Amino acid sequence: MLRFGIIGTGRIGDMHARIIAMQPDAAVTWCFDVFEENARRTGEAVGAKATTDLDALLGADDVDAVLIATPTNTHVEMILRSAEAGKPILCEKPIDVDIERVEECREKLKAFNAFIQLGFNRRFDPSHAGVKDGVANGEIGDLEMLVITSRDPGPPPPRAILEDCGGLFRDTTIHDMDMARFVMGEDPIEVFAMAANRVDPVFAELGDVDTAMIVMRTPSGALCHINNSRRTNYGYDQRVEAFGEGGMIRSNNHRPSEVTRYGAKGTATRDELMYFFIERYRAAYEAEIRDFIGQIAAGKPPNVTFEDGRRALILSEAALKSYQTNQPVKVDYT
Amino acid sequence: MLRFGIIGTGRIGDMHARIIAMQPDAAVTWCFDVFEENARRTGEAVGAKATTDLDALLGADDVDAVLIATPTNTHVEMILRSAEAGKPILCEKPIDVDIERVEECREKLKAFNAFIQLGFNRRFDPSHAGVKDGVANGEIGDLEMLVITSRDPGPPPPRAILEDCGGLFRDTTIHDMDMARFVMGEDPIEVFAMAANRVDPVFAELGDVDTAMIVMRTPSGALCHINNSRRTNYGYDQRVEAFGEGGMIRSNNHRPSEVTRYGAKGTATRDELMYFFIERYRAAYEAEIRDFIGQIAAGKPPNVTFEDGRRALILSEAALKSYQTNQPVKVDYT
Amino acid sequence: MLRFGIIGTGRIGDMHARIIAMQPDAAVTWCFDVFEENARRTGEAVGAKATTDLDALLGADDVDAVLIATPTNTHVEMILRSAEAGKPILCEKPIDVDIERVEECREKLKAFNAFIQLGFNRRFDPSHAGVKDGVANGEIGDLEMLVITSRDPGPPPPRAILEDCGGLFRDTTIHDMDMARFVMGEDPIEVFAMAANRVDPVFAELGDVDTAMIVMRTPSGALCHINNSRRTNYGYDQRVEAFGEGGMIRSNNHRPSEVTRYGAKGTATRDELMYFFIERYRAAYEAEIRDFIGQIAAGKPPNVTFEDGRRALILSEAALKSYQTNQPVKVDYT
Amino acid sequence: MLRFGIIGTGRIGDMHARIIAMQPDAAVTWCFDVFEENARRTGEAVGAKATTDLDALLGADDVDAVLIATPTNTHVEMILRSAEAGKPILCEKPIDVDIERVEECREKLKAFNAFIQLGFNRRFDPSHAGVKDGVANGEIGDLEMLVITSRDPGPPPPRAILEDCGGLFRDTTIHDMDMARFVMGEDPIEVFAMAANRVDPVFAELGDVDTAMIVMRTPSGALCHINNSRRTNYGYDQRVEAFGEGGMIRSNNHRPSEVTRYGAKGTATRDELMYFFIERYRAAYEAEIRDFIGQIAAGKPPNVTFEDGRRALILSEAALKSYQTNQPVKVDYT
Repeated sequence: MLRFGIIGTGRIGDMHARIIAMQPDAAVTWCFDVFEENARRTGEAVGAKATTDLDALLGADDVDAVLIATPTNTHVEMILRSAEAGKPILCEKPIDVDIERVEECREKLKAFNAFIQLGFNRRFDPSHAGVKDGVANGEIGDLEMLVITSRDPGPPPPRAILEDCGGLFRDTTIHDMDMARFVMGEDPIEVFAMAANRVDPVFAELGDVDTAMIVMRTPSGALCHINNSRRTNYGYDQRVEAFGEGGMIRSNNHRPSEVTRYGAKGTATRDELMYFFIERYRAAYEAEIRDFIGQIAAGKPPNVTFEDGRRALILSEAALKSYQTNQPVKVDYT
Repeated sequence: MLRFGIIGTGRIGDMHARIIAMQPDAAVTWCFDVFEENARRTGEAVGAKATTDLDALLGADDVDAVLIATPTNTHVEMILRSAEAGKPILCEKPIDVDIERVEECREKLKAFNAFIQLGFNRRFDPSHAGVKDGVANGEIGDLEMLVITSRDPGPPPPRAILEDCGGLFRDTTIHDMDMARFVMGEDPIEVFAMAANRVDPVFAELGDVDTAMIVMRTPSGALCHINNSRRTNYGYDQRVEAFGEGGMIRSNNHRPSEVTRYGAKGTATRDELMYFFIERYRAAYEAEIRDFIGQIAAGKPPNVTFEDGRRALILSEAALKSYQTNQPVKVDYT
Repeated sequence: MLRFGIIGTGRIGDMHARIIAMQPDAAVTWCFDVFEENARRTGEAVGAKATTDLDALLGADDVDAVLIATPTNTHVEMILRSAEAGKPILCEKPIDVDIERVEECREKLKAFNAFIQLGFNRRFDPSHAGVKDGVANGEIGDLEMLVITSRDPGPPPPRAILEDCGGLFRDTTIHDMDMARFVMGEDPIEVFAMAANRVDPVFAELGDVDTAMIVMRTPSGALCHINNSRRTNYGYDQRVEAFGEGGMIRSNNHRPSEVTRYGAKGTATRDELMYFFIERYRAAYEAEIRDFIGQIAAGKPPNVTFEDGRRALILSEAALKSYQTNQPVKVDYT
Repeated sequence: MLRFGIIGTGRIGDMHARIIAMQPDAAVTWCFDVFEENARRTGEAVGAKATTDLDALLGADDVDAVLIATPTNTHVEMILRSAEAGKPILCEKPIDVDIERVEECREKLKAFNAFIQLGFNRRFDPSHAGVKDGVANGEIGDLEMLVITSRDPGPPPPRAILEDCGGLFRDTTIHDMDMARFVMGEDPIEVFAMAANRVDPVFAELGDVDTAMIVMRTPSGALCHINNSRRTNYGYDQRVEAFGEGGMIRSNNHRPSEVTRYGAKGTATRDELMYFFIERYRAAYEAEIRDFIGQIAAGKPPNVTFEDGRRALILSEAALKSYQTNQPVKVDYT
């Protein structure tokens, strides 16, 4: 039985807490949030103590591991305090939107032998993982092209969230950067990005973009394309397509049902896509938790590491710099 | 170069004539119709002589073969006169809607060594033929169940046509009876039919039905289901599904394009199905003509025979009798 | 918080118990099984007391409702004892394979005001329910044809289970009979069945069949086809297709992922279908439990009733009688 | 009746000739090729005179229009001589692989009032045209992203052909550049390309590439991605996906049949894609001819112009330059 303290019980933290509570070999024992009602709401739902005092959670005997789901700009602090308290950590992505702070955190972490898993949930999606597995098993020979379609539904997040999110590349594309690394099994070494403001004036006002296309290449010469949008009227569009000498493997979108409709205005009409990550990646979030529990139980290191989080951010930075300078950017991971 | 005389240049005959005219090794030289303007219209389109005198066509030196597409109740006469004239025959289905007349025709044909191919065009459809080939090649082992969905688009044909068509079973189901025999490679020995009037009052007025479900079995114990409707609002629904120990092979509907649409009211929406047989089975009609030409050129017998036409009608009669008596009907092909 | 006693903790009962344990507003407090280790295994997994004494469970204060998942031939006894104990009941299908015993049970139940929900889980499947909802909402106008494909994966169940299961029609087709009633919103009044032995000699040895095709009609003239097999090599094939004047709504199979593969031997290849009911109907079983909890909480009667179970069995009996007599069978529900 | 002279009766010219011969309102009267047997082979197939003397064809009274399908490096000469002869021209793409020669040709053409249609056949494909029409009709609002997948089957063309083809960007990508302009309704103004050698050493030996990814942007801020490969083991992969505020329209691949297979190793398996352009774009080539005939008959200008050919080449040049310099390239069409 792995007992979790949830650090941050907003929307995502609350979701994680409820998933953990359903696991036969895990439980939530503590919930922390700076807003007391958040901590209490989640705590009651999962039978856990609620607190606004982080030290109470980190010092509790009945906390074997923590899940960090606070606002992004507090992740580094939470990681360091949890590491200091000796708790295994599952931390939502990104580590931080400021690569300097990530590097500092990395330096400080050297003092601890911390177990830190980054929350790249999409790696655990059965469809995307099926693509990764097929590529890793050599089904299509050497990977030559990877096409990632990743478009959020609308409307865009509230302005307050957009202001702190780091912008499209660090907030959204970062997931696709991780997916690219995951499926390709190689780190991209050069990135070029084009982007535009098409969705909502708020993005331009914040100096951000809402629509983007990226191309990257790896040392082996594999090419990768990512396209992003902040607004999709048919749901959350999430696809991965891997191409090589031996063929192609694709992961397609998930829908609430397998119903199809035929009528005078069209045939084979399917449901709208699932709305957003909470619905679309429900199974992935559960598989992520199970993987975290399993690695700890087995005494093994995490399958998604701090370094994975750092490298995805470095790639997001490279995409942003490419967009800003209108030049391809070489990626330096050292 | 095989030179055709077209006997009957209504809608179907005209279509056949134009397809023949496109073949590099075939031509239409004569067009016969009782309505002079029909004969002339098609004749002009394909560069052929037009006539209202059947003997002129049957006696012409530049007619190597005939295609019969006159009204069904004249097929027997046209077959016998063409056979007497020594011309290879491609005759539209059905031979006749009256089984007695078919038996008489069969008897009289014994006097000739006629080449007669029946116009079961669906056998030549690349998708349905793909199912047949897969079954014949043993891909699914012994065939255990066959499900045929065969629904005409609406509106129903004009009353005048319905009056002479022989009713749903002899006019429409007969195609599915042939498809069942074609894919199963066995003759059904027992038939049960349920039917209803759901589409248009005209069917009940004529003592006909517009909606039907049939089950049949073969000597080996394979089972077959056919469902028919006279009105489908999303196009011409034509599917064949073969099931056996080794799996399933299905032929699905054809559409004008491979466009899919995604929007707020549904995703993956495809075109409506092709409207009716002229559009849906265009490739099949051409393959049928090519098969006819090829068998004659090779000095081989037809691949779809008078006997195929007779047996499909016997099965249609059995379905009708089953519906009328509400009893399963054993089929006697002798 | 609704506290369940699980009566029978074999494979299905164990699955139900684990699903109940995950619900925030439900818990399993008692597990009964005649095999002590079964009761204990499930009890430990969900934090419930284990017993081989049914009275202990039925008499417990902390049991608000029971779920019956014992062998079919004990369902009637379990229903009556639970009803006598005043517990709301969720009972696996069928009530019994002997219609006489079902009628007796029905008679005896008149003494109690029992809440009994029958376990027709497929009604709660999001895809099949989507078809039902579309039909009920008038999307396709009057229903004219319903086609139900329902094929179990192989290998067939062990002989011991087959001996007591009541045969294909009462064990498997009964689900489809319920689906037909559910989607059509009408009770079929006539049934005709063909069947065969194609899958395994054990079925013939037991006087049972393994492959079947059924047609039925309702008072309004709607027609229904069901096809069944005891062995499908590509997984559990479960489809429902409703056709009417306004179009068609279909529910298609579910798969573990949305991966598609393209290679030299074929394109668009999808996963095998989910293996069997535990995997395929996982979401339906959970929705069924939620519906049961919700109706009790709201003080409303069950959505799937004892009478639904009785009528589905009457239809299964009719199909069996039709097969045995090779005659259509009129259905009498009184 | 529009009478064609075919200039160049290699593989493509022969295909065009046969398609023209099938049109009721067109005929092939002359076939020219420098290889006499080519001219004769096609001439015999379509009932046309064969010649190795281009002047004979261009001077013939019974030639109303010409179709140019000679090797690319002779297109300019053939266009100019045909224009001088006053014949309407349908010329295969590209005009030339050398933009200087195209500009010269453009200059010289000012002396004639020539009808010149460029052979961008894909514009006439019913699926791609469906995407264009949907976008043009405002179905998805303003276009925001366009993704073009365009991968040739293998093996690569013979070395001799590759040597003269102008390289991947001018030979293959040029079709996608035209498709981008066609669907977007705007000219891209900036292009960035990454490319690699993954398929066959011959490409590197020739200083060419075999795998490429491109991103482009238009004045309105719409983004476009193109990916290309010279070798696809599952057939000719040709897809177009347009995305905007109102949704997405996609054109998918065509297959020889609508057969799907289900078995123990996978389900829903479709045929391999059609092999290459002759098979995949058969309907498009016919629609292209019909459009050419129709515009001439109506006295209207061509729907695909010399300028379209020039602009697609300018974009291909920009992609090549971007790849060579590893810099985004601004496009100048003046």
